[in-house]
Amino acid sequence: MQVDRRTGIEVIDRTECLQLLGEHVLGRLAVNEGSAPLVLPVNYGLAGDRVVIRTATGTKLDAVHRPVCFEVDDFDRAGRSGWSVVVRGRLVEVLPEDRVRWEQMSVLPEPWAEGEKDHVLCIEPTVISGRRIRPRPAEPTRADQG
Amino acid sequence: MQVDRRTGIEVIDRTECLQLLGEHVLGRLAVNEGSAPLVLPVNYGLAGDRVVIRTATGTKLDAVHRPVCFEVDDFDRAGRSGWSVVVRGRLVEVLPEDRVRWEQMSVLPEPWAEGEKDHVLCIEPTVISGRRIRPRPAEPTRADQG
Repeated sequence: MQVDRRTGIEVIDRTECLQLLGEHVLGRLAVNEGSAPLVLPVNYGLAGDRVVIRTATGTKLDAVHRPVCFEVDDFDRAGRSGWSVVVRGRLVEVLPEDRVRWEQMSVLPEPWAEGEKDHVLCIEPTVISGRRIRPRPAEPTRADQG
Repeated sequence: MQVDRRTGIEVIDRTECLQLLGEHVLGRLAVNEGSAPLVLPVNYGLAGDRVVIRTATGTKLDAVHRPVCFEVDDFDRAGRSGWSVVVRGRLVEVLPEDRVRWEQMSVLPEPWAEGEKDHVLCIEPTVISGRRIRPRPAEPTRADQG
């Protein structure tokens, strides 16, 4: 296991990143509007290493063919610890044959909001990476020090 | 209260956005590396309408003077509901006098990871916006329909 010596942050390997992505259903998609990033929470499915989302027309559909970043995390405020997984790549419209296959495999996410979401998009991943920060060991008290 | 008719998504007003930002300590900062967005989880403090973060040298410090997007959310998977608040603006290094004042006001976040985080940055907000998706009413059952 790789650990950053300066920060104590662990690197999560690709296999565990995909496992964590598969266990969750809600993440955040960052796309660019012009040169400014915008973060949009989305529910998603996972097909192999593809993060799959549904959308209507709008910001997400406009980002097709562009680089995006998708993030999932889980943090514990009290323990000051947690993990995050990031998928970077290009957003593409899913091919009809993949869409049918993924529908049959139940990997297409069901929209949480109302309204039609006709477009199924996925990320062609170039980087899948994750980091974990463990709770710090308790600092020694006066009693420990004698 | 504004509601998007197509999606049923509610708009959260600026006052409540700031309240929600003030109640949480962990969000996600999206910055651009070249033309590709990158999402980084960060713990933060709030000084008025300024999201304040600490960092060492690296991606976040490189993003100073550039447009960024910060996001905080809370979702309930079972209820398929939740909210998100987004702050868009320019990332700037905090002036020494603000830093001293904010330190005294305890709004500077304490780093969760180890290692020095000498730089204090904040977002000069241009947009603070939020959206909420409420649990959908249960669909009528056969019994309800008579």
